[in-house]
Amino acid sequence: MTEPLPADSLELRSLVTEQGTLELSLTEVPLPSLSTGEVLVRVEAAPINPSDLGLLLAGANVASAVVEGTSDRPVITAPLADGALRALAARVGQSLPVGNEGAGTVVAAGPTPEAQALLGRIVAIAGGAMYSQYRAVRAPSCLVLPPGISAKEGASSFVNPLTALGMIETMRGEGHRGLVHTAAASNLGQMLVKLCLEEDVPLVAIVRKPQHAELLRSIGAVHVCDSSSPAFMTELIEALKATLATMAFDATGGGKLVSQILTAMEAAAHTSSGAYSRYGSTVHKQVYIYGGLDPSPTILTRNFGFAWGVGGWLLTPFLGTIDPDTFSRLRARVVAGLKTTFASSYTGEVSLVGMLDPLTLRQYSKQATGEKYLVTPNPADE
Amino acid sequence: MTEPLPADSLELRSLVTEQGTLELSLTEVPLPSLSTGEVLVRVEAAPINPSDLGLLLAGANVASAVVEGTSDRPVITAPLADGALRALAARVGQSLPVGNEGAGTVVAAGPTPEAQALLGRIVAIAGGAMYSQYRAVRAPSCLVLPPGISAKEGASSFVNPLTALGMIETMRGEGHRGLVHTAAASNLGQMLVKLCLEEDVPLVAIVRKPQHAELLRSIGAVHVCDSSSPAFMTELIEALKATLATMAFDATGGGKLVSQILTAMEAAAHTSSGAYSRYGSTVHKQVYIYGGLDPSPTILTRNFGFAWGVGGWLLTPFLGTIDPDTFSRLRARVVAGLKTTFASSYTGEVSLVGMLDPLTLRQYSKQATGEKYLVTPNPADE
Repeated sequence: MTEPLPADSLELRSLVTEQGTLELSLTEVPLPSLSTGEVLVRVEAAPINPSDLGLLLAGANVASAVVEGTSDRPVITAPLADGALRALAARVGQSLPVGNEGAGTVVAAGPTPEAQALLGRIVAIAGGAMYSQYRAVRAPSCLVLPPGISAKEGASSFVNPLTALGMIETMRGEGHRGLVHTAAASNLGQMLVKLCLEEDVPLVAIVRKPQHAELLRSIGAVHVCDSSSPAFMTELIEALKATLATMAFDATGGGKLVSQILTAMEAAAHTSSGAYSRYGSTVHKQVYIYGGLDPSPTILTRNFGFAWGVGGWLLTPFLGTIDPDTFSRLRARVVAGLKTTFASSYTGEVSLVGMLDPLTLRQYSKQATGEKYLVTPNPADE
Repeated sequence: MTEPLPADSLELRSLVTEQGTLELSLTEVPLPSLSTGEVLVRVEAAPINPSDLGLLLAGANVASAVVEGTSDRPVITAPLADGALRALAARVGQSLPVGNEGAGTVVAAGPTPEAQALLGRIVAIAGGAMYSQYRAVRAPSCLVLPPGISAKEGASSFVNPLTALGMIETMRGEGHRGLVHTAAASNLGQMLVKLCLEEDVPLVAIVRKPQHAELLRSIGAVHVCDSSSPAFMTELIEALKATLATMAFDATGGGKLVSQILTAMEAAAHTSSGAYSRYGSTVHKQVYIYGGLDPSPTILTRNFGFAWGVGGWLLTPFLGTIDPDTFSRLRARVVAGLKTTFASSYTGEVSLVGMLDPLTLRQYSKQATGEKYLVTPNPADE
C-alpha cells in the first residue's frame, strides 16, 4: 500500500537566539529518503508532554509571546527568563525539532521484509521530531498497534506508560515494596494508580488539592494525601505505615516535599523498631526526582538518618538498564492496555499551525494537572 | 597468661534526662563473665571520633557544662539544645555506654582454642562501650595486632581506616574512577590522601582554610581546592576535569557544598560532550554524605541534569554489604599500614575521669580539623 506523497514535510522548530529570545516556527523540510530498514510514518497524533515543553519553550515567558509571520507560517517570539541564556548556551542558534513521541500510518518502506511488513500499519514511535508531518524511523523501533487502536489512542504509548512501568520495575529492582508518587493527579499519576492496583503494588499518592484527591479515589486509589492539608505529615506517616512504601517518585523537585517524604518514611520505619540509634533506622529510603514542576532548590533537612538516597530518574537511561526481553514485555503490556490502564485523555487537539497561536500556546504550556493536548500534524487526513 | 583482675570495671555513661539535660558519669559495673568463645580485653586506648561525640554529647551545649560529684566520680551536666529532646526520645532515661573502637590486652579467655590463643595478645576491637576499663568480646571479632604495634597505635584500627578503604571500595563497586572528599584535612582525610596515592585513585580534596591545603599538599595531595577561595568553583571544575572524579564523600552535609560539587562535576562532564541535552550529561554523579559537621539543611540547586544521586553513607551498613573475604582483606590491609598509611596522631590523651572535666570536655568536643583525643581507661597500667 502506497499513496502519493508530498515533496516536503512541515516541521515545528524551536530556536533560542543569542539575543535571549525564543522563536517557534514551522519549516518545510524535504521528505527524507529512506535507508534500507526504515519506514516513513505520516504522524497523525503526538502528545505535548511536560518533557516536551522544556525543549519547546526553554523556560521562556509565554505570557509575553507575540506572533508575526503569515497565517499559515506564523512565527512566535517570547523573551527568555533573565539569566536563562547561559544555561541554554549549548542550544543557542540551533533550530531544534520537538516532540518525543507520536503515532501514525506507515506510508512508505525500505526494501527489507521487516520494513515492507509495516506498510499501511498504524505504529507508535518515539525518538524526537514528532511535531512533524512525516518521520523516517527504523522498522524495529515501531510499536505496531493492533487493529482497532487509532493513532490518537496510540500517540502516548511510550513516555507515560513506560514511565509508570519503569517506576514499578525500579522499585522491584531495588528491593522496595511500595511506592509514593507526587503530583499524583497527572495523566501519568492516574495511569500509575490503575497500574499499581493491577500489579498489587501499595501506592501512596500525594496531591496538592482536595479535588485531586477525590479524582484519584474515584479511580481506586486507596492512600491519597493532600499536601495542602494541615494534617498532611500525620496522614502521610499513617499511609507509609500501612503501605511500607520506601521508594518515592517526585515530579516537583524543588522545596521541602522530598525531605518531608523522607522524614515521614523514617517516622514510619521507627514505629517498627524500638532501639535507639543516632544514625536513624536501617531501612533504606529512596526518592527519585523525575521532573521539575518546582524549579526552586531541593531542601533536605536530613532528620531521617543515614539510610537514604535522593537522585534524578529519567525514562531513557532507565530503558538503557533493562534487557531486551524486559523491554519487549513492557511494550507488549502497554499495547494490551492502551484502551484501559494506559489510556490517555486529552483536553484538546491542536494543529502544527495552531501550536503557534499565542492563546493556544498559553493553554498547552500551563501544565495544569490533568490537562494535556494532542498535536495533529496532518489534520486534513483525519 | 592470666593476672589478678578487679571485681568491677569503670565505664563512662551518657544519659539524656526527661528534663532535657545531658548527664555524663562513671559507673562501676561487675566484670562480665565470659561465654565460651569470648575474651576479656583490658582497654588501654580508645579514640574519640566524631561518630562517638554524637552519642556522647547528644548535641548538648558543652560551653554550659557544669561538674558535680566527687573528684574520682565527677558528674557532668549540660543543657540540650532547644527542641532537641523530641529527636532524642528513643534514648531518654537510658544510661548508654560510649566508644566505638579501641585496643588493649586480652587478660582472660573462654575455653575455646580460638579464645585461649588470644591470651596476652594486644587486639583492636570495635562494637561500642570502649570508654570502659574492660570489655568482653567474641574472639573472632578481635583484630590481633602484630608484635611491635602498641594498643595506642592500634586503637583507631576500625573507624577511620575502614571508612577510607570503604570509600574506595564503594567508588570501584559503583563504577567511578576518582573521588572527591570534603573536610579533607581531618585525620580521616589525611589517611585518604595517602591511601589514594597508594591505590592510584585520583582524589580531589576540598578544605576550608589555606593552611589545610598546605598540610595536604605536604603529604602528597595533588588536587586541593579551598572552598574559602573566590576561585573555588573554577578550581574545582579544573580538578574534576583532570581527575574525572564523579563520586564524592562529604562530611559536612549542610549548606550548598554538595550542590556545588554536583554542579562542578556536571560542568566537567560537559566539556567532554558537545551536544545539547536539556536533561544534562549522562555521566552519573554521586555524593555520599557520611557526616554532619554542618547540621543546616542540604540545599540542592539541581542545575546538574538528572544523572545524579545524593545519599547517606555509613561504615557499618557498608561493611554489611561486603563478603567475608573482602572484609578480611581490608582488615589485613589496615594492620599492615598501622605505622604508615593508617597511622593516627592524637592531640592529647585523657583518662575516663579526665573526660568529665569541663575544660577537657570543651577541648575534645570541638571537632577542630586534625585534632583528635585518645581515651586511656587504664592509665595506671601504661
